[in-house]
Amino acid sequence: MLTRSLVGTDEWPDAEIVALLDEADRIKRGDGASPALVGKVLAMVFLDPSLRTRTSFEVAMAREGGHAVVLEPGRGSWPLETRDGVVMDGDTVEHLREAARVLGRYADALAVRAFPKGASWAEAREDAVIRGFVAHAGVPVINLESARRHPCQGLADAMTLRERLGVTRGKRFVLAWAWHPNPLPTAVPASAALAAARLGREVVIARPPGYDLDPEDTGTIAETALRNGGKVRVEEDLDRAVEGADAVYAKSWGRLDLFGDPERETRSRAGLRGWIADARLMERTRGGRGLLLHCLPVRRGVEVTGEVLDGPFSAVVDQAENRLHVQRALLRRLLGGTP
Amino acid sequence: MLTRSLVGTDEWPDAEIVALLDEADRIKRGDGASPALVGKVLAMVFLDPSLRTRTSFEVAMAREGGHAVVLEPGRGSWPLETRDGVVMDGDTVEHLREAARVLGRYADALAVRAFPKGASWAEAREDAVIRGFVAHAGVPVINLESARRHPCQGLADAMTLRERLGVTRGKRFVLAWAWHPNPLPTAVPASAALAAARLGREVVIARPPGYDLDPEDTGTIAETALRNGGKVRVEEDLDRAVEGADAVYAKSWGRLDLFGDPERETRSRAGLRGWIADARLMERTRGGRGLLLHCLPVRRGVEVTGEVLDGPFSAVVDQAENRLHVQRALLRRLLGGTP
Amino acid sequence: MLTRSLVGTDEWPDAEIVALLDEADRIKRGDGASPALVGKVLAMVFLDPSLRTRTSFEVAMAREGGHAVVLEPGRGSWPLETRDGVVMDGDTVEHLREAARVLGRYADALAVRAFPKGASWAEAREDAVIRGFVAHAGVPVINLESARRHPCQGLADAMTLRERLGVTRGKRFVLAWAWHPNPLPTAVPASAALAAARLGREVVIARPPGYDLDPEDTGTIAETALRNGGKVRVEEDLDRAVEGADAVYAKSWGRLDLFGDPERETRSRAGLRGWIADARLMERTRGGRGLLLHCLPVRRGVEVTGEVLDGPFSAVVDQAENRLHVQRALLRRLLGGTP
Repeated sequence: MLTRSLVGTDEWPDAEIVALLDEADRIKRGDGASPALVGKVLAMVFLDPSLRTRTSFEVAMAREGGHAVVLEPGRGSWPLETRDGVVMDGDTVEHLREAARVLGRYADALAVRAFPKGASWAEAREDAVIRGFVAHAGVPVINLESARRHPCQGLADAMTLRERLGVTRGKRFVLAWAWHPNPLPTAVPASAALAAARLGREVVIARPPGYDLDPEDTGTIAETALRNGGKVRVEEDLDRAVEGADAVYAKSWGRLDLFGDPERETRSRAGLRGWIADARLMERTRGGRGLLLHCLPVRRGVEVTGEVLDGPFSAVVDQAENRLHVQRALLRRLLGGTP
Repeated sequence: MLTRSLVGTDEWPDAEIVALLDEADRIKRGDGASPALVGKVLAMVFLDPSLRTRTSFEVAMAREGGHAVVLEPGRGSWPLETRDGVVMDGDTVEHLREAARVLGRYADALAVRAFPKGASWAEAREDAVIRGFVAHAGVPVINLESARRHPCQGLADAMTLRERLGVTRGKRFVLAWAWHPNPLPTAVPASAALAAARLGREVVIARPPGYDLDPEDTGTIAETALRNGGKVRVEEDLDRAVEGADAVYAKSWGRLDLFGDPERETRSRAGLRGWIADARLMERTRGGRGLLLHCLPVRRGVEVTGEVLDGPFSAVVDQAENRLHVQRALLRRLLGGTP
Repeated sequence: MLTRSLVGTDEWPDAEIVALLDEADRIKRGDGASPALVGKVLAMVFLDPSLRTRTSFEVAMAREGGHAVVLEPGRGSWPLETRDGVVMDGDTVEHLREAARVLGRYADALAVRAFPKGASWAEAREDAVIRGFVAHAGVPVINLESARRHPCQGLADAMTLRERLGVTRGKRFVLAWAWHPNPLPTAVPASAALAAARLGREVVIARPPGYDLDPEDTGTIAETALRNGGKVRVEEDLDRAVEGADAVYAKSWGRLDLFGDPERETRSRAGLRGWIADARLMERTRGGRGLLLHCLPVRRGVEVTGEVLDGPFSAVVDQAENRLHVQRALLRRLLGGTP
């Protein structure tokens, strides 16, 4: 049997993702207790901080009868070397080869968070840390958000969309760029669009000029949509994009061509504070009852207004809750030998 | 059934507190194993650091067959927004509304520590963080020390007083202000005095002029004492206060009228280093055998001398141990459905 | 029954160490599940940071059905007072006496890491923190690396040597000093040499002039070797030392006579970058097939080359894995009442 890892849901067959979402639905309903993870250990490595991801995975393991070890080396800066052949007489104190191999001896699976870093997107997009862990761990590795993907968030997004809009194809899903004081990574929007595409939704990506996702990711989203009976289009006009939408996923992200230059990036978005999910915008959705999604944490009054977040069509807390259910299903699959 | 939380013991009926203390006594004796918490999860949020509280709760959940998730966001500074209607384009990255609601979906109960902060006591005393968690979590919330209360410490204090002095009413309990290099919060002394008052002790609060507790808290302590057959008086003379005392609870706290101005507060206590629980003072207690209490951590030679701490009438380690027992009883009540 | 602690393996009888290693072998083979630690709690105090030690102990407790509380007070700086009779009006906020006694009430055993600190080796070598915890905890205490010893690493080293070279006496073991940018503690090399000495190996300590271990430790290593049919010699020539060796343990450590003066220490090693375990050196071992050991983390290209670490005779990952097995055996002995 192959050791399987989850770096991005696009690397898994569609049928497996559907089976996993079905299992998550059963777990949420309280069906299907499983002894598969009793006594099992997941080791989580947070090279970047986390509250929701860490809590939901730790609870997932506890609910399944196992245990999660939470490693937060240096609270954001573990001087971990990823390059091959380097002489480590500088700041790095451990090579990923040893770290991954040793943790793989201690735990039944690893989970790793490593945000994009470095001076250029060309380098960051290679996702050396998560790829290195997959190569060396010898046990399944779960991506807890890398430069390119946040598959557990994408799975929770898909579960929420199925829950609220049904499993049938169609329905319009808008990924709506939002203003934010800082340039954020693109892993969440890419994973959310992939999730909607896999469900065969009509995906609209609304973003200001210059804010395109990585072209390879956009291509993967388009292929995924086509394969599943959906389609993708890109819009520059937010109002037009949400017209008749069934769901609006508000999310900020940074310009990839200005990656590594946060000051210039921040200046480039100076005029874009109008990109916000407020009541006026949500009125334009289908019947004014379009779902509001966000991965959290969300800045109230900045990305989404408090009125919309607290309103009847906000699904953000359900979305966060669903992290727990999809992750339990995922852990059963990767560690518990669920076929 | 109402979702119950514990912000302060004064918000619970006297009879429930007594039942909880009785259960804690049984747990300490090794009676009454309970399957009530098997598989349950407590999520603890430490906005301020902790060793004793965190360890005793984590052990409590483990001993009961459950699991405690320990969140220490930012090790003391989670930029959590508590105000309603604010535009979050500054330093806060998450609103308490989302944080509480999401954690309430993951765990069976939450526990929160948030020390008093801000420029004025008028603001800090509102305890916005713990009150916000109670309002939004949707599951029971336990206060791990807020601006006003530290109910788990108060319960351990009550258990220790019953253990050492008997459950009968009467007996003199002195809350004795002590010098300390820094102005400390008043939650512990207020909760200790409340604990003694509920047991119907004769409560004496000895403090220098200007060091009164919050007037509302003093009123609550007095009402609680009266209702339970005890009484409260305030003294400025430490020696006279401890005369014939059965128990002396040494504790430092800061002047509330200088809250937010630690430099001036520190100057105001410059002449008060004589306020220390030393052997000379303890000699004045009933038969020179008065109990010495302290919540720990304690500065030896500053609040209490090493001689007294290591002496035969020091109850500080028992007091700390009792945290574990009262918290197990509390968790069974809040999470396990113990009536 | 005496409360037993483990500060250094040299304080335990040889026969007990052998029994513990035998138990670790059984655990690694999957034999001998034990209910001894179900529901037990280990409290770990890291006054200095750790990834491997923390993870392997946390996993060990989880695999045995217990729970490990991981305390990392201040991430490396807990202002803990160790001196007796001091007036704590400075930076220390808690005395070790209270900390140890309270944790001993919460947990079934404690485990403590405290690296050497202070201006002089004469002071650091007293190991006040671990000795203080042993004196006051009232439950077994495990040393997770102090100034003088790292017994769990030493046990894993011994297990690996038995696994790879057999349990028979003889075989040549070289502790080979390596260059490193920083002066490191001597607990690991002392414990590794002790481990090899106890197995009756021929121990060679190769180090540059001035880099002798603490004379008392060197004496203990020599006595241990003699008692077990082995011997010890010290070499200044690395090439000659590894000639015909069965195992080379590469490890850097600092000059004890320059302890507390890291700048001068670093200058004193300026010319020593040739002290590295590379392919050329390993060729000189017995048949060019000598085992390469290291406690990890290792700086590739500095202490050991990547080629040697990734080669067929590197045992470093097995060595790290064996931490888990020896620690499970140790925990069963100390907490579980295994005779």
